[in-house]
Amino acid sequence: MSKRRISIQDIARRAGVSHSTVSRALRDNSVISPKVREEIKQLAREMNYVPNAIAQSLLSSRTNTIGVVVTSIADPFFAEVVEGIEQVARSAGLSVVLSASHRDVEEEIAAINNFNRRRVDGILVADSRTGKQHMKQLAQIAMPTVLINSQSKEQSQMFHSVEIDDRLGGKLAVEHLVSLGHKRIGYLGVGDHSKSNQQRLEGYRMALSEANLSPMSVVVAISDEDNIRASDVATGQQMLPKLVTAGVTGIFCYNDMVAVGALLACQELGISVPQDLSLVGFDGIALSGYVTPPLTTICQPMLEIGCSAMQMLLDLLQEKTVENRVLSPFLVQRGSSAALLPKVPKQYLI
Amino acid sequence: MSKRRISIQDIARRAGVSHSTVSRALRDNSVISPKVREEIKQLAREMNYVPNAIAQSLLSSRTNTIGVVVTSIADPFFAEVVEGIEQVARSAGLSVVLSASHRDVEEEIAAINNFNRRRVDGILVADSRTGKQHMKQLAQIAMPTVLINSQSKEQSQMFHSVEIDDRLGGKLAVEHLVSLGHKRIGYLGVGDHSKSNQQRLEGYRMALSEANLSPMSVVVAISDEDNIRASDVATGQQMLPKLVTAGVTGIFCYNDMVAVGALLACQELGISVPQDLSLVGFDGIALSGYVTPPLTTICQPMLEIGCSAMQMLLDLLQEKTVENRVLSPFLVQRGSSAALLPKVPKQYLI
Repeated sequence: MSKRRISIQDIARRAGVSHSTVSRALRDNSVISPKVREEIKQLAREMNYVPNAIAQSLLSSRTNTIGVVVTSIADPFFAEVVEGIEQVARSAGLSVVLSASHRDVEEEIAAINNFNRRRVDGILVADSRTGKQHMKQLAQIAMPTVLINSQSKEQSQMFHSVEIDDRLGGKLAVEHLVSLGHKRIGYLGVGDHSKSNQQRLEGYRMALSEANLSPMSVVVAISDEDNIRASDVATGQQMLPKLVTAGVTGIFCYNDMVAVGALLACQELGISVPQDLSLVGFDGIALSGYVTPPLTTICQPMLEIGCSAMQMLLDLLQEKTVENRVLSPFLVQRGSSAALLPKVPKQYLI
Repeated sequence: MSKRRISIQDIARRAGVSHSTVSRALRDNSVISPKVREEIKQLAREMNYVPNAIAQSLLSSRTNTIGVVVTSIADPFFAEVVEGIEQVARSAGLSVVLSASHRDVEEEIAAINNFNRRRVDGILVADSRTGKQHMKQLAQIAMPTVLINSQSKEQSQMFHSVEIDDRLGGKLAVEHLVSLGHKRIGYLGVGDHSKSNQQRLEGYRMALSEANLSPMSVVVAISDEDNIRASDVATGQQMLPKLVTAGVTGIFCYNDMVAVGALLACQELGISVPQDLSLVGFDGIALSGYVTPPLTTICQPMLEIGCSAMQMLLDLLQEKTVENRVLSPFLVQRGSSAALLPKVPKQYLI
């Protein structure tokens, strides 16, 4: 009998599963159940499969390029995340190429497929919008993939991921306003489709409930459309008057761009921030420190998110076992929030 | 005699030039002199060369992907230029992938080479820093390439380009300040290596000279390092006091981020903008409208720059003749500039 090298196909035949299941199991892809992964690894060991063959074949066909899908390069949030990705990639000798999805599922899948065809070594997808209906398409991606702040719950089971704790962030924002004496606190969100918007809203509700404040539905303004972030400023500008009319003294905004829009609306309406109204943003993009007053905001560790995701991808490329990460946001207090004054002057309640 | 199809090699042999010279001449690459281009095209016609063979072969090997090199995706200027690129690319059915050079010549060349190897259909390079010494490396790029706001004079002869008229922009900024009655006008630049910085400074000098105002060398503050744009805010913050000490009443800043830094410094020093000091930025990024007061600025038609460059690349892919474009910036007057008050209060002259 010739001493032929054991192939993945051999293992697949013996295990009675597909080639790709074996390939994924050996690469510790979480789409395969831990039990099956362990069984296949055990079988591979028994059959004297040389596990490094995968690494070798990967290595030889490597392009030393990582594909990153972001929603838009005009989004300052992703700009800072990509800085983190590039830092880690560069030190590993990898190039980074980017592609934009514009928060459109079709464009996102097209970008992923394009990277797949061009044989990048791995893919990072930020703010993914693909849902259940695209599972099959995505399952065909043979290369290591890590999601950043995925907006799709179904995907978390399928791919590795680095995420921010949006619920905690919403909670921290509202707890901060409560600690300043605010009782009528609004949430200014952007469409209700994204996971981040829903979870920040949940955090807002949790904190209000813990402070024995009832969330008043009227003060939860969520804009109708699932706008792209470029127009978040417009959303903030348009929705601010509704919340002011409802008599809020503090507003937690979905993100910093929305808060900037709210701030611009306040300037137009003659509402002083923070004397008449406290504003809290989310993200901690550089811009949040440049407006007047600078924004109190819930910072995402953007650089760390990028670094972690890229490190996770490097680990996957080296066939290491990785664990999904959930990072914590933190409060940065600046000029846009202050202790509640005894009474909001009537004339500002438009 | 067999009726073999005439190849580029045949033309090259007859013309006594290299294969690549013929290939470039037929694609109307400006690296080949117009005279030689015409001679080779004439020869190709005489030899019954089928010009479309190039197009055909290009077509069949097309990846429908365009590579774009930007300095950093954290730069809001390029974010808007890329929007324009993507608009035109999308309507032509092309994907856009981005790579960052971080204003580093080596990284820029690595990014270009990576795109070249991965066989994108064409390349757009923004803010190119490569000089004479890299001519040979760049000449080996076989695919259509368009430069956007190139910082290298040598390259303009070698590649097609879309550029902003920086000199005109500097002139418009200073003419605006002069029209408001300002006589002591400073320029706050960022390092003196880039062509854009030099030409904006030239425009500044031209306008002063035309207004019979002598440019005072002391009021031209140029930061030492050729900083990356991420730290332009810091440059503005650090240099502002020097200009104020010199007694300027109006400042033209290299770009909006520098102007934002200057504005932050004014807030710290208790200098009112525009009452005590007028500021004019450059670029017209969205942020310039969000600060208080919003910035008067020299707008670059960012979307148009992106659209033009991408359209030029499409024309090159279709072997059309293209002409380099120089676009004009324009003044947008907002709150950060105002008519000179009779006298600047002494206490602000720190």
